[in-house]
Order: sequence, then C-alpha cells, then structure tokens
Amino acid sequence: MKQPDLLSPAQLAHSLQLLRQQAPLVHCMTNDVVQTFTANVLLALQASPAMVIDPEEAAQFAGFADALLINVGTLTRDRRDAMWAAVQAAQTAGTPWTLDPVAVGALTLRTAFGQQLLSLQPAAIRGNASEILALAQQASGGRGVDSLHQADAALSAAQQLARDYHTVVAVTGEVDYVTDGVQTFAIPGGSPLMTRVVGTGCALTAVVAACTSLPGDRLQHVAAACRVMSLAGEQTARQVAGPGSFAAAFLDTLWTLEVEA
Amino acid sequence: MKQPDLLSPAQLAHSLQLLRQQAPLVHCMTNDVVQTFTANVLLALQASPAMVIDPEEAAQFAGFADALLINVGTLTRDRRDAMWAAVQAAQTAGTPWTLDPVAVGALTLRTAFGQQLLSLQPAAIRGNASEILALAQQASGGRGVDSLHQADAALSAAQQLARDYHTVVAVTGEVDYVTDGVQTFAIPGGSPLMTRVVGTGCALTAVVAACTSLPGDRLQHVAAACRVMSLAGEQTARQVAGPGSFAAAFLDTLWTLEVEA
Amino acid sequence: MKQPDLLSPAQLAHSLQLLRQQAPLVHCMTNDVVQTFTANVLLALQASPAMVIDPEEAAQFAGFADALLINVGTLTRDRRDAMWAAVQAAQTAGTPWTLDPVAVGALTLRTAFGQQLLSLQPAAIRGNASEILALAQQASGGRGVDSLHQADAALSAAQQLARDYHTVVAVTGEVDYVTDGVQTFAIPGGSPLMTRVVGTGCALTAVVAACTSLPGDRLQHVAAACRVMSLAGEQTARQVAGPGSFAAAFLDTLWTLEVEA
Repeated sequence: MKQPDLLSPAQLAHSLQLLRQQAPLVHCMTNDVVQTFTANVLLALQASPAMVIDPEEAAQFAGFADALLINVGTLTRDRRDAMWAAVQAAQTAGTPWTLDPVAVGALTLRTAFGQQLLSLQPAAIRGNASEILALAQQASGGRGVDSLHQADAALSAAQQLARDYHTVVAVTGEVDYVTDGVQTFAIPGGSPLMTRVVGTGCALTAVVAACTSLPGDRLQHVAAACRVMSLAGEQTARQVAGPGSFAAAFLDTLWTLEVEA
Repeated sequence: MKQPDLLSPAQLAHSLQLLRQQAPLVHCMTNDVVQTFTANVLLALQASPAMVIDPEEAAQFAGFADALLINVGTLTRDRRDAMWAAVQAAQTAGTPWTLDPVAVGALTLRTAFGQQLLSLQPAAIRGNASEILALAQQASGGRGVDSLHQADAALSAAQQLARDYHTVVAVTGEVDYVTDGVQTFAIPGGSPLMTRVVGTGCALTAVVAACTSLPGDRLQHVAAACRVMSLAGEQTARQVAGPGSFAAAFLDTLWTLEVEA
Repeated sequence: MKQPDLLSPAQLAHSLQLLRQQAPLVHCMTNDVVQTFTANVLLALQASPAMVIDPEEAAQFAGFADALLINVGTLTRDRRDAMWAAVQAAQTAGTPWTLDPVAVGALTLRTAFGQQLLSLQPAAIRGNASEILALAQQASGGRGVDSLHQADAALSAAQQLARDYHTVVAVTGEVDYVTDGVQTFAIPGGSPLMTRVVGTGCALTAVVAACTSLPGDRLQHVAAACRVMSLAGEQTARQVAGPGSFAAAFLDTLWTLEVEA
C-alpha cells in the first residue's frame, strides 16, 4: 500500500472556496447533544443547516437538500425509521448522504442499523477508529463515543470499507485518514482541546456532508473538510484558556479562516 | 395603506422595563436545535423559560404559565399532538400563545398544522416573509428555514393575516414589520451576523411570546420585542470577531441593555 | 440536630483529584435543553459523558457506564420507560445512579415517576427546595423549574429522604446542603448569575452523578461536586460581563480549577 498523500494548500483553498460559494443546504438528522454546535459550524462556513426529523417531512426534505447527514448518536427506533426514509429518498433524488456511526460497535440498535445503511450507498462515512473497525466488522467495542483504537489501526479497514461500498471513508484521531480505497490523504493538526468540547467530531461529519455536495473530486473535498476543522482547531487552541472559550472562538476562526493557495 | 410607524424610545423603554419587572414564565415548545439559546435569551431578559413537552404535562403547564411558545421547527406527529393539547389548554386558561411557523410552506406536516393552529387564536405570530406568505396562503416555497422573500413583500399578507385572525404578526428580515392589520411598526437594525447564529429568529419569537403576557398595548410590546433583539444585535456585532463570540456577547448585551426613554 | 459541617479544602482537593483521575463514563439521560452544557461541564472536569436514550441501548449502556444520571426535565412517557429500563439495568449491574427531580411537585407525570424511582435506590438526589420537599411528599408546588422555597426550609425533608432511602441528598439554593441523613455539609458560594444560565443546576447533578462512582466517602464526594460548581461559579462571576460570557468562562474555570489542599 502506498504512502498517504498530503493535501496541498491549493487543494484546501479550492475546496473551502467552493464550499463558501455553493453554501449547500445540509439536511441534518443528528443526535440531541450536538444540534446547536453542528448548525453553528455549518453557518460559520456559509452553509445552511436544516434539521427535519419527521419521517414524512424528512423524506420530502432529503429530496431538495444538497446533502444529508445521518448521525446515530442518540438513536431511537422512531429516529431510525425516519432516517431510513430520508436516506431512501435521498438516494432516489441523487442527494449525497453521509454517515456518522457514533458508538457503532458498542451498542446493538445502532450497530445493526449502521450495517443496514451501508447498502444505501453513503457518499462518505466519518468515524473514529473503533467505529470504522466495527462498521467494517473487524472489531467491536469502543467505550461509548471514545475510541479504543488509534486511527492508523483502522486505516486498512477504512480502505476496505471504501472499496466495498464505493464511498469515501474518513477515520479521525490524532491524524485523520481520508480514503476512497485507492488514494489516501493523511490530515495532521487539530488540538487535544477539541476532545473536551462536545460535538467537534459530529460537526466535522456535517462539514463532510456539506462537502459531498460540491462539484469535483469528492475525496479531495472530504479531506479538505477534515483539514478545515483541524486547522481551525489548532489555530483556536493557541488563543484560548479552556474548552468554553474554545467553542466560541472556533466558530469565529471558521468564519474568518483564510488559506493561502 | 398608511406608512409604517417607528417605535419611540419611550415605548421601547416602557416595554423592556415591564418585561424585566414582570419576569413572565414562558412555556416553550420549540425545536431541538434552539432550546438552549432560547432559554438563555429569556433568562438574560429576566424572564423564566420552561420546556414541558409531554401532552398531559404540557396541557397542565400551559394553564399556569404566563405565555406559551409554539415553534414547529422539528415537528413530529407526537409533538404536534402535544402542542395541540397545550394550545387548547392555553386558550381555555386565557394564556396567550405565540406561533413560530418555521419552514411552513416548505414541508407538508407543519404547513397543515400551521393552518390548523390559526383557528386557536394566537396572540402573535413571528416568521420570515416566506413563512408568513405561506401561512396566509399567498405563496409556498422557502428553502428550509431561509426566506426566499423580502419582509416588505409579505407585509400585506401579514396585515391580512392579522386582521383575519385578530392577532399581531411580525414578519422579520432586514427590516421587521409588526402589525395588527391596522397599525404597523417598521423595526430597523439588527446585523447580518445574526443569520450566522442558529436560533436568533426562534429566540426572538420566544421574546415575542414573553411580551404577549405584558399588560397594555400588545402591538407595541411585540414591536418592542423585535427592537430589543435588533438593537442588541447591532450593538453586539460591533464588538465581536465572528458568530461564535456573537452568541455569547449577545446574551451579555441583553442582560445589560439600557434604553433611554 | 447538629450543625452542618463545612467541607475542608483537603476534602475538596481529594475528591476533585479523584474525579479527574478516574474520568468516569457518565451515562446521561437528561432533558432536551441542557444536553450540550451538561456534556461540556463533564468534559471540562475530565469525565466522559454519553447520552444513550433508546430503552434497549440505555439498559445495555447503563451496565458498562460508571454512573447514570436521570433528569426528568423534559419527560415523556417514552423517555420515562427508557429511564426505568436504564435504572433497573444500572441497579442490576451495580452502577450508581443519580436523580434530578426537575419540577417534581409541579407536574403530574414526573411527580409520579419521581416517587416510583425512589424504590430503585438512587445513589444521590440533587434538587432545589421545592423539588426535594415534593419528593419527600412534604409539599407540592414550584413554579416550573424555579424553587418557591429556600434550601434551608427543605433541609429536614432532605435528611428524612436520605435516611428513608439510604441515599445522599443535595438540596441546592443560595447555600447548598448535602446530607446522608446523619451528617450534613453546608456549601456556600456560587453566584446569582448561575440562575441566568440554563442548565447550571442540571450540570451540577451530572457532576454529582460522576462523583457517586468514585471510591471512598460518597457524602463527601457529592458535597465536593457542589463545591466545585459553586467555587467555579463565584470565580467566573468576577470575570464576566453577563450570562453569555459566564457560560463559556465557567467551563474554562472548571478546566483549570485548582484547590489548595
């Protein structure tokens, strides 16, 4: 397997500019804990979030949104059914959809649902190492939302998953890997402080979802989503006293982020 | 149709002082995304928010709250039924209730429910131009929560709606219009940054709901609610680096806001 | 009844250090309004929050979490059933669980449920005076989440409740009292600004839940949870302009809080 690539500043600048220009409407079906932060991260990047959750309305909305996010963080049976209806409608309409398999592998309802969803052709998947290993059925476990594995341990599982389902997989940790099964980007950066603010991972997946709607190279756009967040994270961490001021300053950083091409 | 009026500083100061003195208990049945920000906006203005959502408890609570807010942002069939029970109880008890018709016109379940709710005599309605046009059955559409129309395009629909249902309608945008169908206030101000923070519109509707409970001229109080938020928005925008610091500083501004009468 | 004790700096430092070292995984079943703040408070203290709400998954998760939090703030019948399943599983697994009886006494569904839950041996209970009096069936009322009573009025009810159910009860207000029915700690401090930020009380109960998982003297650990929050509150209040900046700065204060033993 060849070495992972690095995303060039020009690639990053191009994807970020496209994201801000296109301002995609992102239909978010996500967990209870991260709704506000997810919406604010998308808004700070000029995208437009909309949370629509009734099964009928969600199916309707998935048809005219630019992208759909499915995050199984506080799954219930009702939400599972609504998500399923939305993903089916998205698939019919050609709306790309992205999966965040929060704690898949650790809990049964979401593990079964995560497996089921793979058949509906996700445009992208973003998870930590434990979640990606579980989704690829190469391991189970995870302690809630915390990963027991390093991202590089899950790299080959991610590549296999990407090939099997013709999708882009981002496995995130100290270094993020983004792969379509053939080419892989390694994304450095970020800050340990990001793990002390709830929803940074979930918000990243929302940005990934937004980026799947952009014209051009999807793998590169998803890698750029990861790098935008890790870059904003490392810049923000240098300015703040703790996780409370981090969350606010992170949104400001996204809002003003400039990348030299 | 005569020209819209401007709210005088004395009117604004009077309503704001009354709001802080009365500290109304506002029963909020609102969407998943904006619960925290809505509560914090009310708290920063000395009001007291309470989120009660079970159909039985909501009906019980609507009877002893000072005002009820119905926001259909993440509607489900269960929530619709609970909201219906609460509004009926509010009506019986004489508790004023306020409607935020988020994305009415764009999605079927909430569009039907919004129409249905009109028969239960809302004290006030606050929406963007697309939502007010849809509620008045003069247009449909809207791209999720974003308005496709300018507020002034919806002004005559708002006036008609206000007359038909004996209510106060606030249609908000770059300029807000607040009307009872006879008199109309035009409320300038605010900041584009407010559209980059999720929940500023929804929180405004909660403040409108709080203001419907105040003794005196309801039209004026609702116009004051809009002006309090736009004034705090423009003051805050001058101090901050982006939408993250805006959200926190906006609450501080509401907390300390002084209006010269 | 003997005078309440004060928690010594050494006791506080010991509990806080243990909490940060053990980094307990806290299963939070809490209300819609405070999810994000609750998670961020736990993260700022090095604990690990996880919100799992489906009845089957919640029961599963309660078995491997270090502690379980039950907060009835936005109770529904479905949530009640999921909470009941989780508490039963926690009890079977020996996972300590903590009750926040939000607005018990004011609303019927949660009042009945709160009473029912007492039979399942909570490790701790944290409420305001009205809630504790209602839970002890010595009063009813409360105006939503606001207490009508001072904490000291509920002290004897708290002591009785603690003895009857072999639990630790924290009744919080201007002064907090923490009792096992024999010994009582009085915890001063805090700031009125904390009542203007939604979720400070609910987040305290989450920290109480985290502390019930620590080895050693549970009464002392729960008292330390109250003191950590009141100390951080008073330190933060001195630095901020209002409730918006308070919420962010409070998390920073928790993150960096140092206690001289």
